[in-house]
Amino acid sequence: MIENKIIQQLLESGSIAIISHENPDGDCIGSMLALYLALKRKGKNARMFLKNNVPKNLRFLPAAEKIEVVDRIDEKFDVVVLLDTGELERTGIENIENCYSKLINIDHHITSEGIGDLFYINSSSAATGEIIYQIVKLMGIDNDKDIATCLYTSIFTDTGGFRYSNTTSITHQIAGDLINAGIDFVYIVNKVFDEMSLSKFNLLRDVLQTLELFEGNKIAFLSVTREMLKKNSASRDETENLINFARNIEDVEVAAIFIEEEDKIKVSLRSKYYIDCAQVAKEFGGGGHLRAAGFASRNVSLDTVKENLLKRLKRDLR
Amino acid sequence: MIENKIIQQLLESGSIAIISHENPDGDCIGSMLALYLALKRKGKNARMFLKNNVPKNLRFLPAAEKIEVVDRIDEKFDVVVLLDTGELERTGIENIENCYSKLINIDHHITSEGIGDLFYINSSSAATGEIIYQIVKLMGIDNDKDIATCLYTSIFTDTGGFRYSNTTSITHQIAGDLINAGIDFVYIVNKVFDEMSLSKFNLLRDVLQTLELFEGNKIAFLSVTREMLKKNSASRDETENLINFARNIEDVEVAAIFIEEEDKIKVSLRSKYYIDCAQVAKEFGGGGHLRAAGFASRNVSLDTVKENLLKRLKRDLR
Repeated sequence: MIENKIIQQLLESGSIAIISHENPDGDCIGSMLALYLALKRKGKNARMFLKNNVPKNLRFLPAAEKIEVVDRIDEKFDVVVLLDTGELERTGIENIENCYSKLINIDHHITSEGIGDLFYINSSSAATGEIIYQIVKLMGIDNDKDIATCLYTSIFTDTGGFRYSNTTSITHQIAGDLINAGIDFVYIVNKVFDEMSLSKFNLLRDVLQTLELFEGNKIAFLSVTREMLKKNSASRDETENLINFARNIEDVEVAAIFIEEEDKIKVSLRSKYYIDCAQVAKEFGGGGHLRAAGFASRNVSLDTVKENLLKRLKRDLR
Repeated sequence: MIENKIIQQLLESGSIAIISHENPDGDCIGSMLALYLALKRKGKNARMFLKNNVPKNLRFLPAAEKIEVVDRIDEKFDVVVLLDTGELERTGIENIENCYSKLINIDHHITSEGIGDLFYINSSSAATGEIIYQIVKLMGIDNDKDIATCLYTSIFTDTGGFRYSNTTSITHQIAGDLINAGIDFVYIVNKVFDEMSLSKFNLLRDVLQTLELFEGNKIAFLSVTREMLKKNSASRDETENLINFARNIEDVEVAAIFIEEEDKIKVSLRSKYYIDCAQVAKEFGGGGHLRAAGFASRNVSLDTVKENLLKRLKRDLR
């Protein structure tokens, strides 16, 4: 079993670096921390590296403060574990290719082919955290509350709270087992998911005012102007998920949000049942998934982008 | 085992009526329908009765259209199954006490003591749906997609999407098993939880404008005026959950929403970590739980209610 070979390699190594992708999310941070804590419990010398800071809502996680934020690594480790991505470049960290004797790659993305000396890519896992759960179990570490807190965060975030179609019966089995470790999942969900900064609340309040509906409410648009972000001291990442308020309106089949950035207009698309967002985004030079995709438009006005997209979306409506 | 006795009684009965409480929620409807469908699969003559209409977001559930909405029952059944409440009066239906030869009571509320000839009250179940799941399994009905859809709805709604503290490892095990029956849980969650009427969207947009923060953002108030409801053609039940937008703001410990009704002001309270909402509500003539409670004020202005509550909440802040 590849998991056992990975564990053997880790336990034989003197120094281990755990590294994941840029713009880290809950699965990335949660799996890094869980693996780190498990290796520490085994007495190993492990460190964690990321290009970006840990998002604010994940800083409460055990050992989150141990993650080192770097642009480049010049040391050499016996093993580098690349988590939650299948490409070294996605870490955004320079010189990684020279900083290991052995490379281990663990990921769940369907686009990953696996790189390095040992790799375990399982695209039927809802989160990289599911794979780390299995590895931690095989290492003989059971019912560790800190590790369980990190893994629950991984799985909860990458499944949108057990709501996305990647959720399987195994996901639920693992969640049940993690709960039995005594984690405070109510607190985790509050911290990671529900809590909203005041700037995000104020941004939401303003963005809801911009709703535009077309074609018998089947198409919904929301807009975020530069002025709105500035006025509310809101950051770009606080626009995330705002599109769902439009998507979730009854009768809406497809929603778009238009975000004015410095030099372009970023457009995100979400559909409910049949509109192929990936195809639409592709035609505008972007890409993504069937029900969630996006693109960016340069050198055009917000009104023109809206007009062009509306024309295109109308074609696909039933 | 009491479950087996209940099943035996049901399978021996010629006519069965399934009845649940007024103002039905997802657990109530989901468990009724699951038990009904299971009895139908066994060739039994079963019917369902409620005082109120099935809420719009639950009407897609299999057999939901078979639920009979009545004020009074004058027929006689071999068995009445009272679900999701421990009191006949809570059905709101007249004459139930005269319409059965045997009464079976199944519930998960801690306040239920159990009534009738056979009762199964399990307060460690997150939802009545969890108990019905067990009964359906014991009846030898496996992997029925329609029944699984109803049970998943029960459990998802009564646990707030596996987020409330009543969620256990068994809840997750059951959810995993239901997913294996091939249910479309993404569709269920969208229909039951995420979908928002346009009137609710517009109400939310207006309510977010009313945010008031006090004491370094530890106390948050939202208000719903009669004008807002009227202007947006929103109904009273569309104000539900709006309070969470205030509760979820970072630094907020306690949130209140003030809803102007015809003859009174309804106040709901939510706290995060330490404010005893039940106690505060009690002092204003209401009641509820530790983190969620409410009260109503008559013959006072909105400003006076706010002022009095603010004064009281300040006392409890740390």
